Amino acid sequence: MKEISSARNLTLLMDFYEMTMAAGYFEEGYEDKVAVFDMFFRKVPDGGGFAITAGLEQFCEIIDDLHFSEEDIAYLRGKGCFSEKFLDYLRHFEFHCNVWAVPEGTPVFPAEPLVIVEGPAIEAQLIETLLLVTFNHQSLICTKTNRIVRAAAGRPVMEFGSRRAQGYDGAVLGARAAYIGGVVGTACVLADRQYGIPALGTMAHSWVQMFPSEYEAFKRYAELYPTNCTLLVDTYSVLKSGVPNAIRVFDEVLAPMGIRPKGVRIDSGDIAYLSKKVRRMLDAAGYEDCGICASNSLDEYIVRDLLVQGAQLDSFGIGENLITSKSSPVFGGVYKLAAVKEDGAYVPKIKISETAEKITIPHLKNLYRIYDTETGKAMADLITMHDEELEGETTLTLFDPVETWKKRTFTNIRVRRLNTPIYQNGKRMYQTPPLEQIKQYCAGQVDTLWDEVKRFENPHRYYVDLSQRLWDERQKLLNEYGASV
Amino acid sequence: MKEISSARNLTLLMDFYEMTMAAGYFEEGYEDKVAVFDMFFRKVPDGGGFAITAGLEQFCEIIDDLHFSEEDIAYLRGKGCFSEKFLDYLRHFEFHCNVWAVPEGTPVFPAEPLVIVEGPAIEAQLIETLLLVTFNHQSLICTKTNRIVRAAAGRPVMEFGSRRAQGYDGAVLGARAAYIGGVVGTACVLADRQYGIPALGTMAHSWVQMFPSEYEAFKRYAELYPTNCTLLVDTYSVLKSGVPNAIRVFDEVLAPMGIRPKGVRIDSGDIAYLSKKVRRMLDAAGYEDCGICASNSLDEYIVRDLLVQGAQLDSFGIGENLITSKSSPVFGGVYKLAAVKEDGAYVPKIKISETAEKITIPHLKNLYRIYDTETGKAMADLITMHDEELEGETTLTLFDPVETWKKRTFTNIRVRRLNTPIYQNGKRMYQTPPLEQIKQYCAGQVDTLWDEVKRFENPHRYYVDLSQRLWDERQKLLNEYGASV
Repeated sequence: MKEISSARNLTLLMDFYEMTMAAGYFEEGYEDKVAVFDMFFRKVPDGGGFAITAGLEQFCEIIDDLHFSEEDIAYLRGKGCFSEKFLDYLRHFEFHCNVWAVPEGTPVFPAEPLVIVEGPAIEAQLIETLLLVTFNHQSLICTKTNRIVRAAAGRPVMEFGSRRAQGYDGAVLGARAAYIGGVVGTACVLADRQYGIPALGTMAHSWVQMFPSEYEAFKRYAELYPTNCTLLVDTYSVLKSGVPNAIRVFDEVLAPMGIRPKGVRIDSGDIAYLSKKVRRMLDAAGYEDCGICASNSLDEYIVRDLLVQGAQLDSFGIGENLITSKSSPVFGGVYKLAAVKEDGAYVPKIKISETAEKITIPHLKNLYRIYDTETGKAMADLITMHDEELEGETTLTLFDPVETWKKRTFTNIRVRRLNTPIYQNGKRMYQTPPLEQIKQYCAGQVDTLWDEVKRFENPHRYYVDLSQRLWDERQKLLNEYGASV
Repeated sequence: MKEISSARNLTLLMDFYEMTMAAGYFEEGYEDKVAVFDMFFRKVPDGGGFAITAGLEQFCEIIDDLHFSEEDIAYLRGKGCFSEKFLDYLRHFEFHCNVWAVPEGTPVFPAEPLVIVEGPAIEAQLIETLLLVTFNHQSLICTKTNRIVRAAAGRPVMEFGSRRAQGYDGAVLGARAAYIGGVVGTACVLADRQYGIPALGTMAHSWVQMFPSEYEAFKRYAELYPTNCTLLVDTYSVLKSGVPNAIRVFDEVLAPMGIRPKGVRIDSGDIAYLSKKVRRMLDAAGYEDCGICASNSLDEYIVRDLLVQGAQLDSFGIGENLITSKSSPVFGGVYKLAAVKEDGAYVPKIKISETAEKITIPHLKNLYRIYDTETGKAMADLITMHDEELEGETTLTLFDPVETWKKRTFTNIRVRRLNTPIYQNGKRMYQTPPLEQIKQYCAGQVDTLWDEVKRFENPHRYYVDLSQRLWDERQKLLNEYGASV
């Protein structure tokens, strides 16, 4: 596995233009020129009301390990366009940036700076792709998972998608992001081994087919795994064969041991209809506590519809629709220049676009969330200049950044700064919490959102406002650029 | 990067049920029971007429490296459901299967066995997820890429999607699959370093913003990279600022060196309109040979439409729509039991379903492709029993497996067996060709398909037929099962 494993120094996972630009800044003498970049996104996947950020732990692992090996240097020399002086700079590459990020598991909204990188332009430029692919991937899967988990309305959801993931990291890190987003476990053994995400699963159709009969297959399984006995009942016919055989085995094998069956799983057919029939059959046999799990191409809409139809389901196994976020498989995070430092002062930078929503927010910034102290609910977010300190405030008046005459005053509030220091001058200032804790934090933070923001379709637009100072700065730049072209 | 790198023993990238079933087979004494599994898919992504298989090289790397470390064993022991005898079996795990696969870069069709695994049931079961995730991912990206490349009608397409990929492997192995599918290069440096896929790229908007003016940014870039000078012209205004500045720099910097500019890139706005205007400006300035590259959220449909509208474009950079196959982000490959060996004879196995297309094709099989010797075109595929040898035949009569009265006789044909021996008793029998060769082979094989099969919408259904013997076997099993439930 030489080829695949040598990939694990991920430093070169960058776009080639990052290298040509970095070399350009180097040759230009911009080596120490300080730049500020923001990572943000413009649209919530699936038209949802919020996304959830994830991937910070892996981002930190990658940054901690950034280095160019001699083989990397030799490879780059072979491209024929980099000077020996620049290659030598890479050989001794060190990371000196400041990084702020919103903690993993936090609900976030379009235009907000999720990660801010401030430091030498070369360094900040070189990590662009690694930063984006890390946060884009895990935020996508975490956001999608949380939708499905909310649709299940308290019933456990399991991640079953490894085989349909887009690559190995897609499976393993996808399972990690899904765990933060709310699944109770994963089918992926490596995700358990590596991140402690409970691995779950019992049998495939091949188990049933390998034995002379379905009954014998169930019987042997129950004998081997009496305390983890979930039987897959749709290999031949759920109602005529699968469930009757399962009940017979529960009676013959588990009952004498005094063990209650865990469940049956249905992987095909009309789940709503079948689940009701199966529930009645299990109840009639005295297995009211035996769960029914569904697992056939489900997503948040089908899960919700099944429950609306009164399907008798106790848990869900979700595969491809979760692990690829199939209905919306891209998290469009971007990484844009927000300022450069000249003579010790920040010079704000803006990217103009024909489309208003594509115009960036300049400057080194802070991101605050305002919670109502009484209800605990998140009321609005506020983006400010980097030197505006709002933690401790209990009253704030905000205005809409587009329809600026709309003003609103919040009282009895708690203000929390979301952009958390992660690196200072290249030194780690932050230890990522245990995964279990991130997962709990995520569930708690999603609870702070109003139901209207959590709707799947046409959710209420959560308020993300700019401070007066930041709004003025942006307006000034817009006017300048508008005059110059 | 401890966590991410320790993932690179991928042996445990399996579904937990593969482990519980394997342990079950072991405890059952099925250790030497031979099973036959097929990997196949049911639907071509995007409703296309064919898919392209990819991932064999990585599959072989993984199989060659399969092993359970002491840490893996300790982890599995901790699950509390596996016997010491089974754990000891894993400790000394060796792979003894026979594997056949369709070579990478081959156009393939629904229901065809793309990979066949024959061997001890435990071993064949344990590799299920690794096999599926490998082929599903790369076949998906290869198939999508080939659509986009065909839409570009001979113009070079570049893969620019790393930042939006679903994880690191999604970026790097996605670029590999895209290269097989027909892109001329990738933005991803690691994909070049690792697989020799030409890395391409010049500048982002941040380069332009970092300098006092667009003109100065272009000038410095041209001085640094005169022979690789593609300028991004849409930071401020393509027509008022970007192209005039580019022409000025071509005149002032490149012309005196006697170097022709490579191109300009447009990443926003109305590409069709802008490209025509830009073409005229470049031509008027004497740069008829300066290419125009477009790179803003393109896919096969937009590329085709741009060309229909007469857009003056010479190359395309494609990001998220390619690297995630955004419009159809799942390749639904499955892995199903097809036979078991009992007393030296194959006992065929079938998976019944309410949906006819979900019923599997039993038995150890061969897959043949029939080419017309005169036109070189692929006429039909034929799935047969494993002991039907058809290579060398020049005439064959096939019948439709659903509408069985439809018969067709092919004459002057060349019959090629697609299922190629990869492993024999666990030993590698096959060396994957160099990537460049796979790419050429793929282009050549796509050329053997009729245009009707290559249509994006409502393509002609390519014939995939069963031999009479295989059809009879399948019918017999269907009748048996139909009678038993």
